[in-house]
Amino acid sequence: MSDKSISPVGPPDATIQRALNVKGSNGEGIKHDDIPTTLPPWNSDKSSLKPNFKVPNHLKPSGTASTKLLEIERNRASFSSESLKVYLYGKDYLNRMNKLLNIIQQEEAFDKTRLNYQGRNEKFRHSLRKDKRFVQLSKEFDWNTEDVNMAEMLIDIPGPFSLHKSMFLKTLTEQGDDEQQELFTKRAQNFEIIGCYAQTELGHGSNVQGLETIAAYDKEAKEFVINSPSLTASKWWIGGLGRAADHAVVMAQLITNGVKYGPHPFVVPIRDMKTREPLEGRIIGDIGPKLGYQTTDNGMILFDNVRIPHNHFLSRFSKIDPITGNYIKPQNAKLAYGTMTYIRAGIVQQARTVLARACTVAVRYCAIRRQFVDKDAPMDGKKPAENQVLDYQMVQYRIFPIVAQAFACHYTGKEMFRLYNESQKNLAEGDFSLLADVHASSSGLKSLCTIMAAQAIEECRRACGGHGFSQASGLGALYADYLPTVTWEGDSYMITQQTGRYLFKTMRTLYQDRNAKLSPENVTGEYILRYLSNPEAKSSVKYSGDFHDVEAFVHAFGHRAAYLIAQATKKRDIERRTWNSLLVDIYRCSVAHCQFIMVRNFAQAVLYDVDLKSNSALHQVVKVVFELFACHTMDLEASEFLSSGYITPIQHNLLRSQVYNLLSQIRPEAIGLVDSLGIPDYLLNSELGRYDGKVYENLIQFATKEPLNSIKFNVSYKDNELGIGEPKLAKL
Amino acid sequence: MSDKSISPVGPPDATIQRALNVKGSNGEGIKHDDIPTTLPPWNSDKSSLKPNFKVPNHLKPSGTASTKLLEIERNRASFSSESLKVYLYGKDYLNRMNKLLNIIQQEEAFDKTRLNYQGRNEKFRHSLRKDKRFVQLSKEFDWNTEDVNMAEMLIDIPGPFSLHKSMFLKTLTEQGDDEQQELFTKRAQNFEIIGCYAQTELGHGSNVQGLETIAAYDKEAKEFVINSPSLTASKWWIGGLGRAADHAVVMAQLITNGVKYGPHPFVVPIRDMKTREPLEGRIIGDIGPKLGYQTTDNGMILFDNVRIPHNHFLSRFSKIDPITGNYIKPQNAKLAYGTMTYIRAGIVQQARTVLARACTVAVRYCAIRRQFVDKDAPMDGKKPAENQVLDYQMVQYRIFPIVAQAFACHYTGKEMFRLYNESQKNLAEGDFSLLADVHASSSGLKSLCTIMAAQAIEECRRACGGHGFSQASGLGALYADYLPTVTWEGDSYMITQQTGRYLFKTMRTLYQDRNAKLSPENVTGEYILRYLSNPEAKSSVKYSGDFHDVEAFVHAFGHRAAYLIAQATKKRDIERRTWNSLLVDIYRCSVAHCQFIMVRNFAQAVLYDVDLKSNSALHQVVKVVFELFACHTMDLEASEFLSSGYITPIQHNLLRSQVYNLLSQIRPEAIGLVDSLGIPDYLLNSELGRYDGKVYENLIQFATKEPLNSIKFNVSYKDNELGIGEPKLAKL
Repeated sequence: MSDKSISPVGPPDATIQRALNVKGSNGEGIKHDDIPTTLPPWNSDKSSLKPNFKVPNHLKPSGTASTKLLEIERNRASFSSESLKVYLYGKDYLNRMNKLLNIIQQEEAFDKTRLNYQGRNEKFRHSLRKDKRFVQLSKEFDWNTEDVNMAEMLIDIPGPFSLHKSMFLKTLTEQGDDEQQELFTKRAQNFEIIGCYAQTELGHGSNVQGLETIAAYDKEAKEFVINSPSLTASKWWIGGLGRAADHAVVMAQLITNGVKYGPHPFVVPIRDMKTREPLEGRIIGDIGPKLGYQTTDNGMILFDNVRIPHNHFLSRFSKIDPITGNYIKPQNAKLAYGTMTYIRAGIVQQARTVLARACTVAVRYCAIRRQFVDKDAPMDGKKPAENQVLDYQMVQYRIFPIVAQAFACHYTGKEMFRLYNESQKNLAEGDFSLLADVHASSSGLKSLCTIMAAQAIEECRRACGGHGFSQASGLGALYADYLPTVTWEGDSYMITQQTGRYLFKTMRTLYQDRNAKLSPENVTGEYILRYLSNPEAKSSVKYSGDFHDVEAFVHAFGHRAAYLIAQATKKRDIERRTWNSLLVDIYRCSVAHCQFIMVRNFAQAVLYDVDLKSNSALHQVVKVVFELFACHTMDLEASEFLSSGYITPIQHNLLRSQVYNLLSQIRPEAIGLVDSLGIPDYLLNSELGRYDGKVYENLIQFATKEPLNSIKFNVSYKDNELGIGEPKLAKL
Repeated sequence: MSDKSISPVGPPDATIQRALNVKGSNGEGIKHDDIPTTLPPWNSDKSSLKPNFKVPNHLKPSGTASTKLLEIERNRASFSSESLKVYLYGKDYLNRMNKLLNIIQQEEAFDKTRLNYQGRNEKFRHSLRKDKRFVQLSKEFDWNTEDVNMAEMLIDIPGPFSLHKSMFLKTLTEQGDDEQQELFTKRAQNFEIIGCYAQTELGHGSNVQGLETIAAYDKEAKEFVINSPSLTASKWWIGGLGRAADHAVVMAQLITNGVKYGPHPFVVPIRDMKTREPLEGRIIGDIGPKLGYQTTDNGMILFDNVRIPHNHFLSRFSKIDPITGNYIKPQNAKLAYGTMTYIRAGIVQQARTVLARACTVAVRYCAIRRQFVDKDAPMDGKKPAENQVLDYQMVQYRIFPIVAQAFACHYTGKEMFRLYNESQKNLAEGDFSLLADVHASSSGLKSLCTIMAAQAIEECRRACGGHGFSQASGLGALYADYLPTVTWEGDSYMITQQTGRYLFKTMRTLYQDRNAKLSPENVTGEYILRYLSNPEAKSSVKYSGDFHDVEAFVHAFGHRAAYLIAQATKKRDIERRTWNSLLVDIYRCSVAHCQFIMVRNFAQAVLYDVDLKSNSALHQVVKVVFELFACHTMDLEASEFLSSGYITPIQHNLLRSQVYNLLSQIRPEAIGLVDSLGIPDYLLNSELGRYDGKVYENLIQFATKEPLNSIKFNVSYKDNELGIGEPKLAKL
């Protein structure tokens, strides 16, 4: 083993582990001459993690040990959670995760527990250090893109380099010409320059065309002059800009020869590489405290006659003739759809992970938490045991559907990536139709899944009762950091208009011509045609037990979606309503369509997935999860199923009964199901949701590390001293 | 003017203001010999509030100035928002608010803006300082209870003395005998001792009977011995315990002569009054970081053979004979219902304020925010103006119902206090029936209103788009601090069982005997009787315009509630279902009942409130708000109105149309309505929701104050230095 393979951080066995897991059989590391061979230990001040008081060892939680409780729960499941996990994720994925966890968990720079105790300044420093260490390790271990993505997902601390690695690099790569690849991309890939992506402005978010920042071409000087004509033109929310970046891709209104050509990307140096001071004409700052993302330096920038050379305009598509200043149009703009669809598929998959994290915490903790005695409950030692909170129907009703939503997002995320890949193949053959379909649904799915996931985190947090409010739950920080996803990449309440437009168009097309040609795999057309052939279709359910037929659910959701689309299209085309007066109806069409898609994708797996059907225990439990997803969603939206005449009041009552039945069926499987979702403790970062169930011991440890516990306070109102022993007129 | 009336803090004119407003015409302050006559200025380190960079003055937001925009909006309202405000709150309330604001806003100790930039330690110090200063001012100005309550509401920073002032003092006052009033209450009122209320344990929240902490009476020593038998027995979440309190009221299982008598309150000294070290046998700590409430030191305590004298057992009700150790029972336990009802009425009123804060921010900001151009929009200077976000139906649909909910909570809170007072009168005459009614509804209303308010904050935050995620919105902190209300004073998802039991009982009683005697003013019986007399009743609506009849809404909500109660009671009594298998149904009954109560109380005002009806402009707009509340709530819950057969699918479609109509009717009134809710900027604490509309200028100022902006960072991954100029191996 070479010296280089010995990590400066972490205990020796971790080093060996690493060598064994990652570097191949001979344990040789890959040499990178540009990084220091012996990294100094990133010793940090660990004071915030030392206990500030002690609790006697002899005290234990009362009642059955929680580790034992979870063991009992695990034995109750009718299936192997390990097999279900392998089925869901595949062995490659799980191996990669283990390989990376072995490295990451040893790194103090990736320690998440301390974030809970840190203020903004410390949080930012921690994440800057994390980002630097990440670069070092990715080079040391030669991580490929999949490794990097998974490592980021596991570490889960958005940092000052996040936008550099994503949008900055992506824009350079995709939109820079060959010269610019040398000039910018290579240096960015090597982290010689750190960049950010400056699009959003103080007064302009979704409406990119309305951006105010101006880049005017000065053909005499062969330079662009960047200006912020107003306060609202200030770039705002730009990740990495606040303190870190020295370069920015700036989206600005291109003006040349007195004509405005809309927003285009420019590379603008913003900070001195050495002193890190803003360069002349740039006013830069961090935009201040946020609900989450405290580890990232979202920033603002104002430009005052900032000049950049001609070759800083990213020119792979549009170009400016340097001498005449003439604008040369890009070839094809539709390609951007592909990228957006890909990103949204990623967002749906991320929603899966978020839902999985949330329900894992709630289900495990509610299996451990006991509250109130049930007269019929079994004895626990001498006194009757309190009920496990998970036994309460109201708790099950709140959290089991979230387990089902995680599965639903899993299948739909998978299908979106499959369709994306298909559509890329079709593109190569000049066929845009599938891409247009997938893109349209992807807007609504982004909306539906992000709103669902955000709500689920909060629902699960509340299901944890009082302790849900402690940062030890891990759910508060998850919520705070997840929320921007509801707003960015298309505000989830406005973006559904894209889906609506597509649904209206499909309805019109098929209404006029039942044989109109649609793209291959167009499921929208399928359910609209079925509806048009029989708008008065009715559910055939007679008993609650009838809510089993997988195909019937697909038809029910398709009928309801088509009904809403038909109603709304009628209002638009016949009653001539304004688009604005239909926005809520459009939103509802999008939700109905996307719920159909999710039910349908889940149903496909239950009906046709060979891997799943080959293991009957797995197939059985996944089918129950599917039924819960379908029945619970149907009940949530029951007014639309009732209004369309598809179900009757009596069937609605049967549906509710069936939801309750399914909750009872899920109860013994619950811990097994969340185990199978495969969220490692390191990602979960929750004392309530730990795999080993040692909740109470760790809540105490969590308390002992609070730095405030090292200070004593003077509480006399007559005295201005705050901390005892501190000078009078104490600092705040 | 005496020396004493000159405040050491704030500019001279503020001092004069104070003297004029508060101290009567001669400006003489009331003398309190026990406080220092000249308070030293509480100078704090203001660094976090200094701008760290500057933005040129000449830059202004583009488009119509937002102040102007709000002025235009204010002129569109059909009524005087000032008159509506006076109608809602009364002049006394508003005068008191102005009087207090004049004092409070001048105080640096009550400055809320800095909280956004502080870490936990600084936040706690700030609130300790706030609590001390509050005591000083309340003495200086001789505030009465109403002044104190309103001042706390306006300052809105939960602090280390909060539980001292509420539960600690309350328990001492109500449960201490005469000797204990001298021994504890007086000293607590004088802030000579600082206390907390230690009930909840690490393993025990809602189930108070299950508390593990033991207080065993030792008759030889005439002492109680307090012990924590396990880790889960640790007192937990106790506000003020973590760092501040020197005394605690501890709820512990009383054991005397070998018999256990359930939880009782004991006063336990916990910290040395001088050194502030925990006394022997007490392990105390702050429980660590939380989602909100960072300004409060929620704490834990474990007891190891802690001995307290016989007179530390609060003995107004239960007593222990000091010599025999015999337990003497309390006289009457039912009285506790009154207090709980009173607290819950307060929670509903607080929900009103929270809803008002949330919708004020969203409505004002959405009137200022513009996004996307509408082809038909009026011209704003040369280019077509972008739409005000408030014009989008989808935005209206999300936030206008929240305005209506604020009004609904206003009327129901008011009615709850009225009924509470009535029930207290009845009690004096030995009649418990009204109190039992009011108590039962108060559980469900606590549940419904807290869940509604929490959701509203988040809905309004999202409606603010990207900037909603900045702490400058004020909504993030509001949400984080409001959330515990959903869990405490009875978990809002479990507490509905109390309401359910009462509803089942009323249904059974009336089903068996239509003439059974109910308490006076029993509205539950009214709607149940109406249902029983005609379970097949149907709505008579034919056009969306028919959704105007105020009484008809009351009947509709009553019918639906009674329908659900009848169904659930049948399951319980005839199908013999277990209580647990009905928890979701019970929750639904409670929601339906409480929505009925809210619609009914609101309807009463629209129909019969003389003050309201005397001003037709006010009456007109409040009626529209009522209709929106009723129609929107009905649509949210439409599946139950449909299932009960009360409305048809066609009527459901009309209902949705009517909601859209009402949104358009509210649109021009929106700013007037939120103005009338009367939330002062100081309480709002939001750059987005400011009365003057200067959003963008203040977002910039907000950014300049971020302390991180004073530090420069080294972003080279090869270098472990983080902040530039700091030593290598920098501290995190």
